[in-house]
Amino acid sequence: MAAITALAQRSETATALIDGVLHGNRLLLARTITQVENQTAQASDLLHALYPHSGRAHIIGVTGAPGTGKSTLVTALARCYRQAGMTVGIVAIDPTSPFTGGALLGDRVRMRALAGDAGVFMRSMATRGSLGGLSKTTGDVVTVLDAAGFDRILVETVGVGQAEVEIASTAHTTLVVEAPGLGDEVQAIKAGILEIADVLVINKADRPGVDATLRALQMMLQIEGESTRLVRHHGQLLRVESPAAAGAEEQRWQVTVMKTVAAESTGVEELRAQVERHREWLVASGEMAVREQLRIANTLENIIRAELNRRILSRMPDGRMNEMVDAIRRRETDPYRAAADLLHLL
Amino acid sequence: MAAITALAQRSETATALIDGVLHGNRLLLARTITQVENQTAQASDLLHALYPHSGRAHIIGVTGAPGTGKSTLVTALARCYRQAGMTVGIVAIDPTSPFTGGALLGDRVRMRALAGDAGVFMRSMATRGSLGGLSKTTGDVVTVLDAAGFDRILVETVGVGQAEVEIASTAHTTLVVEAPGLGDEVQAIKAGILEIADVLVINKADRPGVDATLRALQMMLQIEGESTRLVRHHGQLLRVESPAAAGAEEQRWQVTVMKTVAAESTGVEELRAQVERHREWLVASGEMAVREQLRIANTLENIIRAELNRRILSRMPDGRMNEMVDAIRRRETDPYRAAADLLHLL
Repeated sequence: MAAITALAQRSETATALIDGVLHGNRLLLARTITQVENQTAQASDLLHALYPHSGRAHIIGVTGAPGTGKSTLVTALARCYRQAGMTVGIVAIDPTSPFTGGALLGDRVRMRALAGDAGVFMRSMATRGSLGGLSKTTGDVVTVLDAAGFDRILVETVGVGQAEVEIASTAHTTLVVEAPGLGDEVQAIKAGILEIADVLVINKADRPGVDATLRALQMMLQIEGESTRLVRHHGQLLRVESPAAAGAEEQRWQVTVMKTVAAESTGVEELRAQVERHREWLVASGEMAVREQLRIANTLENIIRAELNRRILSRMPDGRMNEMVDAIRRRETDPYRAAADLLHLL
Repeated sequence: MAAITALAQRSETATALIDGVLHGNRLLLARTITQVENQTAQASDLLHALYPHSGRAHIIGVTGAPGTGKSTLVTALARCYRQAGMTVGIVAIDPTSPFTGGALLGDRVRMRALAGDAGVFMRSMATRGSLGGLSKTTGDVVTVLDAAGFDRILVETVGVGQAEVEIASTAHTTLVVEAPGLGDEVQAIKAGILEIADVLVINKADRPGVDATLRALQMMLQIEGESTRLVRHHGQLLRVESPAAAGAEEQRWQVTVMKTVAAESTGVEELRAQVERHREWLVASGEMAVREQLRIANTLENIIRAELNRRILSRMPDGRMNEMVDAIRRRETDPYRAAADLLHLL
């Protein structure tokens, strides 16, 4: 009993965690990720030690509106990668609903299918509204999985929002998933995330309406024409021209639309092949280096922003903040003047 | 010709703009909003002058997944308010699609129905990916419309994302819009935004599946039980207990589900009445003061964050940033160490 208590209470040293991550210990990997998610005092030491071991994994973002079957697709894609002999990390970002007490449907879908396979590691991250923090934390978790040696890392978000575009800019290859019959217009178009796609996927392609959805997406692609990609940098979306884009037409990446029925694993191996083709193109065209630079720049900025926010909030005693809020409410001052005063103090 | 050229080139002084806003000049209002959106040098003077005139409008957030007919609903709601003798400002946040060259479907829906009525003012804001900036800028535009004297201000976002939750926390009353048949599960639940609703709306309620959607939402409400609200403060979502929540059951706000067919204006006047009931409850229960405090605190923090980001980015010469990015890419350092170094410099 005493031994069990001691075991439960022991917290691993940073060295033990780092060694565990680098040598395939999945329990220590999970604990490392927990520290990184919670941004513990030890977390930055862990990340500093693990970062040099990262940079090998290919990161695949999967996004799209709710109801398109993304969790099922991610699971099927992971299985295909396993069959191809690769190891897979999955980071699933689900909004947490207090209504359901934290149990997430996606988790249950994924766990059942992949349980027991040491070549797959899955981590769910609850958003719980921490907007700015999520992008940074997701990137950190990806870094840990990369260092742990996974060949492919799938990052699944519940799409249709600007935060999801930001997370997509952390991936090398981004898949945008649609499904037929989900409303009058193509969901992704309305939400403005279509531009971030390297591969478009119509899942649940056995449902009615798939031809209309396919035509709508192909029309959008024709209008778009060139293979540019919207990524985030310095808080602004930029179009990143492929270095090859100025040159021969054949060197551009063609965004195609693929059909899958993930629940039956139909079309998923073809999707995997297309992702691999994109990876090869990234390297051959020199675009990979550009995206890596943008990823790193975004990471740097996220870290700086998170730290500044932390410092600001810790230096502002609650009493002072409340006084200021009341003064503003009484219209004795305004938020702009008050903010300027606060910034002068810091 | 010379006079026309001079007219085109003249830029209004801050005084002229402020006077225009306060005295019903819609053209000068539009130009003021443009300055505020673009965060020009003059913008903070304009906001400082206008803020004391704000605080009277009731702000209504309207969010929900794409395809639920929000634009049509907002338009119909605005018309009901006009019939009730009130003036309405509408701020519509649409993702911008380079595919469609900036013309947004929502705009066309709204414009056609409301054109020519001086008692309604509509402004579309393009997201273009400026995540953090959007929340602040939206709040600023609402301040201007408030100062201009509009009784009700509708803020419409394309929902289903954490940024939208943040924007909802700037409203007094938040409507979450669902529609039947949009996928296997209630869209809003999957996206985690159900908790921010003060009123739930099933639009397109003439479509099949409405009863299933209604039952699902009512079940969620029963599980939830109490009337708490998730709002953002200090970057974290908080549950805000109504001061009355500790007391009598009758003093709590009951979140109900309303059915509308906005395209036929069915159920919209009933929705308007419910919004007004919520407003009265906010005042009577003391909750209005709490929400105002949170809105102001969020605004303060958004301004401070935006300013810090601006300062950081302006102090970092691009060359230095690129050097650092390359060093990280070569794994000579890592983003965490590099960020710490940069922060030391500042």
